[in-house]
Amino acid sequence: MTRSREAILAAARELLREEGPSAVTHLRVAARAEVGRATVYRHWPRSEQLLTDAMADVPMPFFLAPATPVRPWLERHLRVLADQLALPDVLAVTTTLVQGARSRPQITTQRDQLATTIGRQLRAALTLAEQAGELQAAGDSRDAPALMIGPLLYRALLEPGPVSDDLIDRLLAAAGTWTTDRHA
Amino acid sequence: MTRSREAILAAARELLREEGPSAVTHLRVAARAEVGRATVYRHWPRSEQLLTDAMADVPMPFFLAPATPVRPWLERHLRVLADQLALPDVLAVTTTLVQGARSRPQITTQRDQLATTIGRQLRAALTLAEQAGELQAAGDSRDAPALMIGPLLYRALLEPGPVSDDLIDRLLAAAGTWTTDRHA
Repeated sequence: MTRSREAILAAARELLREEGPSAVTHLRVAARAEVGRATVYRHWPRSEQLLTDAMADVPMPFFLAPATPVRPWLERHLRVLADQLALPDVLAVTTTLVQGARSRPQITTQRDQLATTIGRQLRAALTLAEQAGELQAAGDSRDAPALMIGPLLYRALLEPGPVSDDLIDRLLAAAGTWTTDRHA
Repeated sequence: MTRSREAILAAARELLREEGPSAVTHLRVAARAEVGRATVYRHWPRSEQLLTDAMADVPMPFFLAPATPVRPWLERHLRVLADQLALPDVLAVTTTLVQGARSRPQITTQRDQLATTIGRQLRAALTLAEQAGELQAAGDSRDAPALMIGPLLYRALLEPGPVSDDLIDRLLAAAGTWTTDRHA
């Protein structure tokens, strides 16, 4: 029982790390852990609980390992984040995190870790862009995650709808002035 | 019983309209409705439920009745919104709305109404700024609420902490280019 539980969690973490939250489904986790789907359901009746547990120790794959030129790289990663936030499972985890953080200390910790990790990774990408002479950053870099990810959170949570390429461009503009060509 | 319920809801709506969500406490609603606090608790054991019910029919007081010069007016209103979002009760309603909207149609409707209302009111302020020659708007105006309110939502829900004046300035900059002096 405990062994299958560990195997399932490990599989969920792998999928989360490799492909992001949307990959953590009962079907795929069971296949990866080489257990039956019923076993996964027995431990975690709802996939969002499994995802929440798997998230506990895993860095989110957003804005990881930036490469130059940073602008197109960041554009792609913002698009991936926007697409992921629109998926029902990811939305479930997000709302579970923000709602649970109000009353459950363990979820508050997870929420804080997620915000810290994603913020650090985004800022590392912006720092690389500055070092590469691509970006003249505007204002306090600690506000960059709120300015660049907040609008995607708003679209996902309050105002569901598509995220246009123009909106992604405006998120990039919130970081500062880019010296690189828009479609480099 | 029904009469006191109606009186309490009416009082909650008045307070919501006049002062915003944070004013909708058991104490103040009871005083305004001229009923005992215990009566309010009997109908609505938790103040966020009362607030959610009161919110159903009431336009939120954010970005209402813009005045020129729009920039300082908008700066103040963004600050009010940031402060309100940091309050426990308002945060409770916000997370209740975003979490409940996933599964409860009534809350989905409330969430959509809130987003529509606040978006329309913010865009009306930006339109006034354009007409007054204060603002050259950037991009699609439908994205303005996500760009200007999203970062405050991110700060409230994912990354609790103060909202600096510099961040408010950057929210304003997301709307476009302002021709008015920063501290007009």
